[in-house]
Amino acid sequence: MAKNFTKRANDFSKWYNELVIKADLAQNSDVRGCMVVKPYGYSIWESIQQELDRRFKETGHVNAYFPILIPKSYLSKEAKHIEGFAKECAIVTHTRLKTNQEGDGVIVDPSSQLEEELIIRPTSETIIWNTYRGWIQSYRDLPVLVNQWANVMRWEMRTRMFLRTSEFLWQEGHTAHATEEEALEETRTMLDVYADFLENYMAIPVIKGIKTENERFPGAIDTFCVEALMQDGKALQAGTSHFLGQKFAKSFDVKFSDKDGKLKHVWGSSWGVSTRLIGGLIMTHSDDEGLVLPPKLAPIQVVIIPIYKGKEQLSAISAKLETVINVLRDKGIRVKFDDRDSQRPGWKFAQYEFQGVPIRLALGSRDLDSGNIEVTRRDEKSKEMIPFDEIVDHVDYLIEDIQSNLFKKALNFRSEHTTDAESYDSFKELIKVKGGFVSAHWDGTVETELRVKEETSATIRCIPIKSDKKPGLCIFTGKPSKQKVLFAKAY
Amino acid sequence: MAKNFTKRANDFSKWYNELVIKADLAQNSDVRGCMVVKPYGYSIWESIQQELDRRFKETGHVNAYFPILIPKSYLSKEAKHIEGFAKECAIVTHTRLKTNQEGDGVIVDPSSQLEEELIIRPTSETIIWNTYRGWIQSYRDLPVLVNQWANVMRWEMRTRMFLRTSEFLWQEGHTAHATEEEALEETRTMLDVYADFLENYMAIPVIKGIKTENERFPGAIDTFCVEALMQDGKALQAGTSHFLGQKFAKSFDVKFSDKDGKLKHVWGSSWGVSTRLIGGLIMTHSDDEGLVLPPKLAPIQVVIIPIYKGKEQLSAISAKLETVINVLRDKGIRVKFDDRDSQRPGWKFAQYEFQGVPIRLALGSRDLDSGNIEVTRRDEKSKEMIPFDEIVDHVDYLIEDIQSNLFKKALNFRSEHTTDAESYDSFKELIKVKGGFVSAHWDGTVETELRVKEETSATIRCIPIKSDKKPGLCIFTGKPSKQKVLFAKAY
Repeated sequence: MAKNFTKRANDFSKWYNELVIKADLAQNSDVRGCMVVKPYGYSIWESIQQELDRRFKETGHVNAYFPILIPKSYLSKEAKHIEGFAKECAIVTHTRLKTNQEGDGVIVDPSSQLEEELIIRPTSETIIWNTYRGWIQSYRDLPVLVNQWANVMRWEMRTRMFLRTSEFLWQEGHTAHATEEEALEETRTMLDVYADFLENYMAIPVIKGIKTENERFPGAIDTFCVEALMQDGKALQAGTSHFLGQKFAKSFDVKFSDKDGKLKHVWGSSWGVSTRLIGGLIMTHSDDEGLVLPPKLAPIQVVIIPIYKGKEQLSAISAKLETVINVLRDKGIRVKFDDRDSQRPGWKFAQYEFQGVPIRLALGSRDLDSGNIEVTRRDEKSKEMIPFDEIVDHVDYLIEDIQSNLFKKALNFRSEHTTDAESYDSFKELIKVKGGFVSAHWDGTVETELRVKEETSATIRCIPIKSDKKPGLCIFTGKPSKQKVLFAKAY
Repeated sequence: MAKNFTKRANDFSKWYNELVIKADLAQNSDVRGCMVVKPYGYSIWESIQQELDRRFKETGHVNAYFPILIPKSYLSKEAKHIEGFAKECAIVTHTRLKTNQEGDGVIVDPSSQLEEELIIRPTSETIIWNTYRGWIQSYRDLPVLVNQWANVMRWEMRTRMFLRTSEFLWQEGHTAHATEEEALEETRTMLDVYADFLENYMAIPVIKGIKTENERFPGAIDTFCVEALMQDGKALQAGTSHFLGQKFAKSFDVKFSDKDGKLKHVWGSSWGVSTRLIGGLIMTHSDDEGLVLPPKLAPIQVVIIPIYKGKEQLSAISAKLETVINVLRDKGIRVKFDDRDSQRPGWKFAQYEFQGVPIRLALGSRDLDSGNIEVTRRDEKSKEMIPFDEIVDHVDYLIEDIQSNLFKKALNFRSEHTTDAESYDSFKELIKVKGGFVSAHWDGTVETELRVKEETSATIRCIPIKSDKKPGLCIFTGKPSKQKVLFAKAY
């Protein structure tokens, strides 16, 4: 599998694209910028969904579903929202096809033109807040803590599978609250849910921070984010949580009568992560032998491959393994026993290695007498023989150890690639040569941020929440700065 | 809750619409024919999804995701498919908005017109078979057993929430096989999965059958279906499983080299159920007091309502209930303990009754001494006092008993509303007055079916698979008939 596979050091971007294809995660479709998520890729998304959904419900949220089509006029109700969004989008104008004159194809029936065009949702704030107006009258109706799992569409010009596609899958939470404090607390809680999920489930270390005005969600008062660092030194925004203030409530006239009998506008938040997380997953852990998956997230945690000739050997090996497989599965471990005879063991080894299965067990006829079983861990590519009656405990240990090892590796990488810059010259040099996060003082203006971006391609990824908050002088203008912020080139 | 609620006998259709709204299941949106599925309605869909998904995986299927937009030309590749489908659909023609001259709104940018229009999928056979061409080369690549959970869109003129909406949620399985037998077996297996799911999880009895040519899926060789009977005597097609033969493989040129080295076209099936099932669920079990849910499916199986004045009483009641709640939850029973003080017990009773929660437990301060707890079952609206230490066993028993009681009730209703007609006069009378399924001989022609439909509004719901297969004479033309078929008015 790893043959004809570009190395990260040679061409990171090519490596990424090849990995997505060769690991059977996704492929481009004939429809511009839309990908097909293949079964193995989708099983990773299901794993992400399941765990996030559990965490959302644990924090009091429920799911709902809103229409995919949004009337054009909704988009312009929140001025900033339309400005920053939804210009490049899929627009539905007609609702009927008819047979062409030749009778061999179909054309759009001009008489089916809509009075008002409909937009495939690029995000659902507008249609959801328009609905909330009907849901919320009293403080008793609050908070509304709703999440939606959905497909969305943004007509992107340059697309890359998982990282930026015209259609993508995501979840979008949209909450409504009686007070500013509560909405802010929700915004922060969901940021924490994302951070904890990314670090402890996906083994991706993240920096929690606040976006600058320039990078803020159109229509938000504040955008909180979790930022991760990829192996090529570029940052990836992994999730965002927006404090909407009363903006959408005012645009869509969502009011409630409070305990004091007064009519007030509702406070809101929205937050989301998408299939982009799979791109981040790949670029954080994977290597020149293919995909590497943290065990907690891996759709297959343990693959077991029998090495046999003929049915008799296979049934002896299968009999030996039966109990182990059952015990592992009873413990909730996701095991695949691949005894297909249509493929050789070597082919299977290569396949599962490339697809990032964390633990591989192989048992041959010869091993039956020795009482040992071969165990290979994907993260270190290390092999060892383990006594058969210790294998269950060993798998338990490996699941924990591989998970924490991947996180540590990624965290080390990030530490090594986070550098302070005290001057603009050293800043430029760092961004250009070393990459990674560069921590530097900034005067707080959009203008400076844009000029730095123009000159270096680096943007402010976030104003980190955890920070010594030491003031200083902007590396670009020399004006006062409240605290250092994190710059990086980004996806 | 049941105040101002229409009775089934007075106006079934009005009863249905009111129930959907008052039980907080869904509401219409501003977008023609598109509904908002509200949290409680969506939790029912999640319950359906979860159980079906488990059954799909158990039968060897995996999930994937294909683009929502389909190039217009794909739709005409399978001639019958475009004929029967996709004429009324949402058509994307442009990809950019721009600010209008007044600067207060947006208009479609004419320069963003697509060369080829894209259609929001009404179903995905075309785009999926177009993708399968790349996935399948050898018999080793078969079978492909893929399912997709997705939203689809058909521009319906007359819509009703859950039953017929422009956008709806569904799953669509699309499988590819080396042989005709295997594809047929898959088609039948999935029909059985649907039937078993409907009967044993949703408590909806179904008739398995084959559709007539007239009702067949456009592009299929045969459409198998499960048909259910609603309380107003109309039938509902609850799920379909299509044997596609080699039609889509030929239209999209999907071939494989077989074990014998020969290049052959692949055989296919497709199968689906949708949010329509929620409509069927409502019209099968619910009553003049609102929704009735079978326990296996119910998002909340047991609601526990404390009856108290002041914090002291509440904490005594809560303490008493704590163990029971934990034991029930440990057994996997979905319990909601509603101790909100913002609503009175009477309001809560009415609410959960209307929302169809199968079992209600109520405990008041007075009961603490008596050692009994009040148990109410939704299906029979019967109340009894049960000794506290028997409550867990009793809940176990009720879950089973309510489930089977609802199924039996529905089955009895269907038996009472399935009648044989030996003449066209009695047929017309039955369809008009009694309703339900009418079993009658039919000559096997589309013409007769259409004329009967014209005259009576009844269609052939299916040619039942379980049947005595006794030949006879068509009630309409007197021509020979192989076996009786099931007619009914249908949703």
